[in-house]
Amino acid sequence: MNSSVEILDTTLRDGAQGKGITFSVQDKLAVVKALDELGVSFIEAGNPGSNPKDMEFFRLAADLKLEHARLCAFGSTRKKGTPVGEDPLIRSLLEANTEAVVIFGKSWDLHVTEILRVSLEENLAMIAETVAFLKAQGRLVIYDAEHFFDGRLANPAYALATVKAALDAGADRIVLCDTNGGTFPDVITEELKAVIALLPPTLMDTTPPDPGPSSLLGIHAHNDADMASANTVAAVKAGCRHVQGTLLGFGERCGNTSLAVVIPSIELKLGLPCLGEGRLERISRLSRKVAEIANIAVPDTMPYIGTHAFSHKAGMHADGILKTSRSFEHIDPIQVGNDRHFLMSEVGGRSAIAERAKKIDPSITKEHPVTAALASKLKTLEAEGWQFEGADASFELLVRRELGRYQPLFRIEAYRVVSEHPTGETIACSHTWVKVWVDGQYEIAAAEGDGPVNALDGALRRALQRFYPELEQVRLSDYKVRVIDGTAATAALVRVLIESTDGRNRWSTVGVSADIIDASRAALVDSIEYKLIGDIERRFKAYL
Amino acid sequence: MNSSVEILDTTLRDGAQGKGITFSVQDKLAVVKALDELGVSFIEAGNPGSNPKDMEFFRLAADLKLEHARLCAFGSTRKKGTPVGEDPLIRSLLEANTEAVVIFGKSWDLHVTEILRVSLEENLAMIAETVAFLKAQGRLVIYDAEHFFDGRLANPAYALATVKAALDAGADRIVLCDTNGGTFPDVITEELKAVIALLPPTLMDTTPPDPGPSSLLGIHAHNDADMASANTVAAVKAGCRHVQGTLLGFGERCGNTSLAVVIPSIELKLGLPCLGEGRLERISRLSRKVAEIANIAVPDTMPYIGTHAFSHKAGMHADGILKTSRSFEHIDPIQVGNDRHFLMSEVGGRSAIAERAKKIDPSITKEHPVTAALASKLKTLEAEGWQFEGADASFELLVRRELGRYQPLFRIEAYRVVSEHPTGETIACSHTWVKVWVDGQYEIAAAEGDGPVNALDGALRRALQRFYPELEQVRLSDYKVRVIDGTAATAALVRVLIESTDGRNRWSTVGVSADIIDASRAALVDSIEYKLIGDIERRFKAYL
Repeated sequence: MNSSVEILDTTLRDGAQGKGITFSVQDKLAVVKALDELGVSFIEAGNPGSNPKDMEFFRLAADLKLEHARLCAFGSTRKKGTPVGEDPLIRSLLEANTEAVVIFGKSWDLHVTEILRVSLEENLAMIAETVAFLKAQGRLVIYDAEHFFDGRLANPAYALATVKAALDAGADRIVLCDTNGGTFPDVITEELKAVIALLPPTLMDTTPPDPGPSSLLGIHAHNDADMASANTVAAVKAGCRHVQGTLLGFGERCGNTSLAVVIPSIELKLGLPCLGEGRLERISRLSRKVAEIANIAVPDTMPYIGTHAFSHKAGMHADGILKTSRSFEHIDPIQVGNDRHFLMSEVGGRSAIAERAKKIDPSITKEHPVTAALASKLKTLEAEGWQFEGADASFELLVRRELGRYQPLFRIEAYRVVSEHPTGETIACSHTWVKVWVDGQYEIAAAEGDGPVNALDGALRRALQRFYPELEQVRLSDYKVRVIDGTAATAALVRVLIESTDGRNRWSTVGVSADIIDASRAALVDSIEYKLIGDIERRFKAYL
Repeated sequence: MNSSVEILDTTLRDGAQGKGITFSVQDKLAVVKALDELGVSFIEAGNPGSNPKDMEFFRLAADLKLEHARLCAFGSTRKKGTPVGEDPLIRSLLEANTEAVVIFGKSWDLHVTEILRVSLEENLAMIAETVAFLKAQGRLVIYDAEHFFDGRLANPAYALATVKAALDAGADRIVLCDTNGGTFPDVITEELKAVIALLPPTLMDTTPPDPGPSSLLGIHAHNDADMASANTVAAVKAGCRHVQGTLLGFGERCGNTSLAVVIPSIELKLGLPCLGEGRLERISRLSRKVAEIANIAVPDTMPYIGTHAFSHKAGMHADGILKTSRSFEHIDPIQVGNDRHFLMSEVGGRSAIAERAKKIDPSITKEHPVTAALASKLKTLEAEGWQFEGADASFELLVRRELGRYQPLFRIEAYRVVSEHPTGETIACSHTWVKVWVDGQYEIAAAEGDGPVNALDGALRRALQRFYPELEQVRLSDYKVRVIDGTAATAALVRVLIESTDGRNRWSTVGVSADIIDASRAALVDSIEYKLIGDIERRFKAYL
């Protein structure tokens, strides 16, 4: 049996079914990059047949140079009564032009007769013909057996027959799905025994880590009974070597298996690698990055990666931890790139800080005094609601300030933003006035815009452009707002994340304030400074 | 073996160890009442020895007339080298004057020698003497074997010896704790077999539901590996008939077993009653009540009781549910007092729209012309960036408008929001002026706030409160901003989602605009109108 487990992330497809989860095409590309950096094997990125935006994504994604992951398009078995080659949804799967495709078929007789409303035989033909057709087109075919466990309860022989149909047609992976999420782990274990016993012995005997053309069993779980992790682990213990889920557990209803939770469980507790060597330590950081892109907060109590996962409140526990950390921790937080809180030993935090500060000064180590100063500064800022996880450029400016390698290139002396509506029915109108100190003199500029932040951005650029004409190429490519303490509602602190680009590079900055305009101002200023400093270092290298 | 499972809730003790969880004495009394109404067997309510506030609570709690639950005070085995009767912490356990007490002792040799720093023999004496003393004082003694599973790994014979010491001394319950939360369910199953084999056969043979003096095995799990539910269910399957947890999963680090999740699993899927007849249907409501007391939002995706637990977004799923509900639901939401939701989204269908419109007019079907009109309106609005899946109240207003069952209760004639910063360094200041038409006249009001939206909210309420004093109870409980098309950045459309509450109900509204202030204005207006319409319908029913 394989000694490693391949991971398929479906944040962009099944995850997007979760309430409140939507991704733009740019968001999707950013998620793909993060997942590739994490080292998953497959990224199920959309359903090109049902969503035209997904097709645009696949066209753009073809240019991504992925290091590790393969993209998958997702669809279903062919329509009833339609030759597979003429089914427009199957055609759009091919047009997505991915190396692998995932198709789901029905295993539960209730779904076949009541939902699809076809005969049990026709469903078997739909499965077999779809798999065979896609194989003939050269695709790696991952077959998701929807509702497999419910199907086994209702009509065990038929559920197994659907899986055999996919297998005999040449499916490369057979993934058993607990679509309704109500199955318990002991049932998963028993069912897998039954499936394995009935399948050819070669099935369980393939050669990873490179997924070859041979078949592997997989598991796809949902969390409706809070069993997604347990079911996934039980399936892996029983022989599955392909695990589907969404990094943060996004998904329909109570969500899918959280990969950020089961990957550490499988790697650290079952001893089976899922990602490449040294990648598990990235999982906390990359999970937060994906959460930022989705504009969703990582739950504090999320196992392994949550900010409270290694927080110790009880005096007794904190004391125990100081005596010996395993007394109240089931793993070392460093293994998943997370930090222990309420303790002085910021080991995990410091190495991460040093790692990032090295980009500005390669001599910085974990023991360098600047690292300690930065760790303590970060702690204070994070307590105030700042977060640099998704704001590399702001973090770099923070490091520069701590290193003394920073001087302000301009300063906002004053600004005034006015938004007014002659009536509630007309188009919004905002105008801004700003006074900036730059290169020893004052410059005043005004602008109007679609909203207050847009107007402020316009006025600030106008004031600076005479001194720094390169700012003309800069535009904001993303703008996100997060309320930090939801309970105080409109008076709560907000965190603004801005992504900027000059056509060549992209960088992200952050601002925090109770006033959304002031938070935006802070992020805008960081964005402009970061761009200007980079240009100065590039252009005047010889003098620096 | 018992055919029912007794539940011990420790929200007020272990739950209060969770980050961000604090309870006043009045809060604690309110939680006790809610838990008693739910029908748990025991409420572990505090540690009177370590917390003087807890002692005050126990004094006040003595006057509560509990219908079903018994209160427990919590403490540890006696101090090393101190006669048990002279240990002040043990004395305070008795002073709490509860029928039952919970004491924890060490099962893991590492903790005995490294944390307590006593000999292995002394620890056994501490356990035996403490249990025997409390039994002699007439208490029902629940013994928590801390770190039992880690202890079994480290020194299996010793871990078992600690449990035997408690049992031989007369403990009424032996509760096996996975204190660090890193154990997997198959280990729980195996360990329980080992424990049961070594204990007298009478242990597993007691007579519920009234907890008698005989011993029962129990389980206390933590969620650090996302296994708390699975471990608890595995333990019950293996013979445990006493389950500890916290209603909402509050607790140290990643939290304790969520009783709101495992109770439905045990009752509905294992068929073992935990609460009295007909009580399970109260669990969604009472969980939300306890969450309100703790000032923590119930996670939307929480299994069984979360607001998304039975939400259906994909058109295919929504369509399937309407054909036969078990097609995409593992249980009927009515069983746990939760509701089915259909999310309005680009992938939703007409059946889902009709299902929701029925709440306003029960005669609306999928074929009703209003459903078609709403579907087309939704499509247009969604293309403009509106999204109603998280904004039930705005959707209801939309339906009312389409049905002609709507008249504006007020209108914003004009507003002006000014944000200014004398310098970039000082605190932000926003002020707003608003002119509102209401009940045939104009009202003008002004307010200042921490940010522009806060100031607008303040001015709008001030203008309306003279006409609708009930608005005083309304407060915004959450405020979210999402940029719809990230690529246009600060000039892009933003979608604002507002959640409001009047203390009894919660509702969500949405606004979209290129101007964040105008988007907020739209969501604020919907929120206020929704509240006012609801009140009018309730108060003036006879005239409508």
